[in-house]
Amino acid sequence: MLNDMLVNLSLEEKRKVFDVEAKKHKNFCEMNLSLNMARGKPSPEQLDISNGLLDELNSTIKFTGTDYRNYGILDGIPELKNLFCDLLNVETDEIIVNENASLILMYDSLQRAMQFGVLGGKPWNEQGKIKWLCPVPGYDRHFAITELFGIEMINIPIDENGPDMDMIEELVKDPQVKGIWCVPKYSNPTGVVYSDEVVDRFAKLKPSASDFRIFWDNAYMVHWLYEDDKLLDLFAQAKKYGNENMIYMFGSTSKITFAGAGVAFIVASKENIKSLKSLMGIQSIGPNKLVQFAHYKFLKNKENIQNIMKKHAEILRPKFEKVLEILEAELGNTGIATWLKPRGGYFVACNLYEGTAKRTVELAKLAGVTFTASGATYPYKKDPKDSSLRIAPSYPSYEDLGLAMQIFCNSAKLAYLEKELGLTV
Amino acid sequence: MLNDMLVNLSLEEKRKVFDVEAKKHKNFCEMNLSLNMARGKPSPEQLDISNGLLDELNSTIKFTGTDYRNYGILDGIPELKNLFCDLLNVETDEIIVNENASLILMYDSLQRAMQFGVLGGKPWNEQGKIKWLCPVPGYDRHFAITELFGIEMINIPIDENGPDMDMIEELVKDPQVKGIWCVPKYSNPTGVVYSDEVVDRFAKLKPSASDFRIFWDNAYMVHWLYEDDKLLDLFAQAKKYGNENMIYMFGSTSKITFAGAGVAFIVASKENIKSLKSLMGIQSIGPNKLVQFAHYKFLKNKENIQNIMKKHAEILRPKFEKVLEILEAELGNTGIATWLKPRGGYFVACNLYEGTAKRTVELAKLAGVTFTASGATYPYKKDPKDSSLRIAPSYPSYEDLGLAMQIFCNSAKLAYLEKELGLTV
Repeated sequence: MLNDMLVNLSLEEKRKVFDVEAKKHKNFCEMNLSLNMARGKPSPEQLDISNGLLDELNSTIKFTGTDYRNYGILDGIPELKNLFCDLLNVETDEIIVNENASLILMYDSLQRAMQFGVLGGKPWNEQGKIKWLCPVPGYDRHFAITELFGIEMINIPIDENGPDMDMIEELVKDPQVKGIWCVPKYSNPTGVVYSDEVVDRFAKLKPSASDFRIFWDNAYMVHWLYEDDKLLDLFAQAKKYGNENMIYMFGSTSKITFAGAGVAFIVASKENIKSLKSLMGIQSIGPNKLVQFAHYKFLKNKENIQNIMKKHAEILRPKFEKVLEILEAELGNTGIATWLKPRGGYFVACNLYEGTAKRTVELAKLAGVTFTASGATYPYKKDPKDSSLRIAPSYPSYEDLGLAMQIFCNSAKLAYLEKELGLTV
Repeated sequence: MLNDMLVNLSLEEKRKVFDVEAKKHKNFCEMNLSLNMARGKPSPEQLDISNGLLDELNSTIKFTGTDYRNYGILDGIPELKNLFCDLLNVETDEIIVNENASLILMYDSLQRAMQFGVLGGKPWNEQGKIKWLCPVPGYDRHFAITELFGIEMINIPIDENGPDMDMIEELVKDPQVKGIWCVPKYSNPTGVVYSDEVVDRFAKLKPSASDFRIFWDNAYMVHWLYEDDKLLDLFAQAKKYGNENMIYMFGSTSKITFAGAGVAFIVASKENIKSLKSLMGIQSIGPNKLVQFAHYKFLKNKENIQNIMKKHAEILRPKFEKVLEILEAELGNTGIATWLKPRGGYFVACNLYEGTAKRTVELAKLAGVTFTASGATYPYKKDPKDSSLRIAPSYPSYEDLGLAMQIFCNSAKLAYLEKELGLTV
């Protein structure tokens, strides 16, 4: 009853709720908890799924063809390239398989464009102030890269179909706009899967800058909770429009095998890949091929990748449902919070009452639970409404998660009430 | 007799030698060989030394502290950092242990300096035409990096004590000179170990550019053939002069464990490391820690690293001695070739008669043996005297090596005689 449309209560009623929630908060604080809900880290149980990968290599190893212990093979071993080509529906000269992090591939791709330009274009470093489109909320590590390079970032609203394409189509008329960050499937942190229309409009985008690049971070390409939702294939679609040079697609097995010890790839047009390889060949003699070979032997084929993802889903699904259940129970009818129900990925994005996100994180921290800093999912760490928070359910145990979410909801309510009543706990 | 000072023979006598050598060359060509002496690749037998590393990880793995399967730890796992710190006599905040290639660390360090500057200095990209010192002959992949970035490379002669320090001390008065490539121990390709005096003069170098950096590629730090020759510790020495910010030191286990699947490190001052980490933290969430952990368990300690290197030496030493034996027998008294006898490393550098190196490689190629392209060990692939060639004895079998070296010497003599006589075979 007290929660029924918290926003509509009288000041007196709000004061009563505040007292109740403040007492609850005090109790939480006295539990001396130390829980972390900040990062989308797989849990130890999820990592155990791939422990078999560690048995794939041992000292009896024999290489009849190329010796993968030695130097060479810049773009990844053929077996693993073929597997990813099958999974991604691309050809072997449209992919480079590298080390453990797609983040490095993204950073390096951007750095190369800054220093050397793309496909014969002028280096971005020499083109004055360049700009970048950033669907928000988005992935903090993406924004950190463009910020480091001094690129002006422009917020693009995102809804359940993906980013605002009208706005994007308008903004790319500016030749200083050189790219966009996208997490098109189970988007970080909203969980949104871009609609077919959105993907198609990306595929036929005609930016003024011929060196514009879509950084398509397909981080959660097979990371479903219920069933593998369909994302239209941007790369195939762009080929139809002769527009495939505009796309860099990234992905990794960080959340399929080991978060810190997987393999990552970049997919791009033959022309882009050829150009990237000519530069990468100066930087490196080749990735760790033993890690790649172990991955190939463990992953086997795309059907088996889905089997592995089913095991992840079985661990993750109850956690996501627990988060949603508590959000619904505690904030469902308050009028101070909205959220989407993700069908995959690693996050639940929650919109709180304007101006209360930062304080919510502070209050939760006082009670021993770390959430991603407010604003982290926006360029320059600035959420203009101070309302968006990211919840990462994967790492804590199921039990801890329940407690952490109780504290989250308590903190959100308190932050709202503090603001309304001009009080602090 | 015919070989006695080939250069001093009369034209007629030279013509006779030419006929003999041309016939030998024809016979070699008819053998349809396909041997490769181009790269310093370890042989399969050397790689086998470290196969036990592949047994260090398996699915029973348990992490009681940090889970090395998960994200995190930007600068390498503590166990392996400690091992390298012990080996290199540095502290844990003076090192970053990364992925499989020191080349990437060098490239990235240079790219970061270009884009962001070093320690608050102006980005090198914004400092006009910058210059780089290149002891020659040197490592082709070093020169390829500086060439890619459009940095002007200046040749520095190297003798059995190391590079010409008088010349270096003079050149660094130019503030546009930003760095130097060095392989200080068992230098690539000369095998030279820099003398104490040379290292000390590097340690107290006072370049005009405060953002000058010595790229000290200690690629062969423990890669001895007879006993571990002593190289004065540049980093320790530079600290005595308060000059340690000037040094980036690199190394890897590529030629200790697996050439394509080892671990690499950068050593630098605390201030440099702090700055590098702040930039690396945007590019990466951390290296593959499982590879690092397996290395730690396999390498164990610095004494054991020496045991491993002893096994490498036992395989490499006879190969190097075979190369030197054939050089001595075939070219020893001809007056057309000189070489140093390396006590470690991966190469024998041979100086041929001026203007004959390129042709020697061509003739050997005709007989089915690939040597490193002439000029490869010079900036811009230009050996001004067309005389320096690099011989890599490590990869071929002992038997193939003998044959390949016979062909090398035959080709060198023929190239000289062709030039003298105005003939071609």
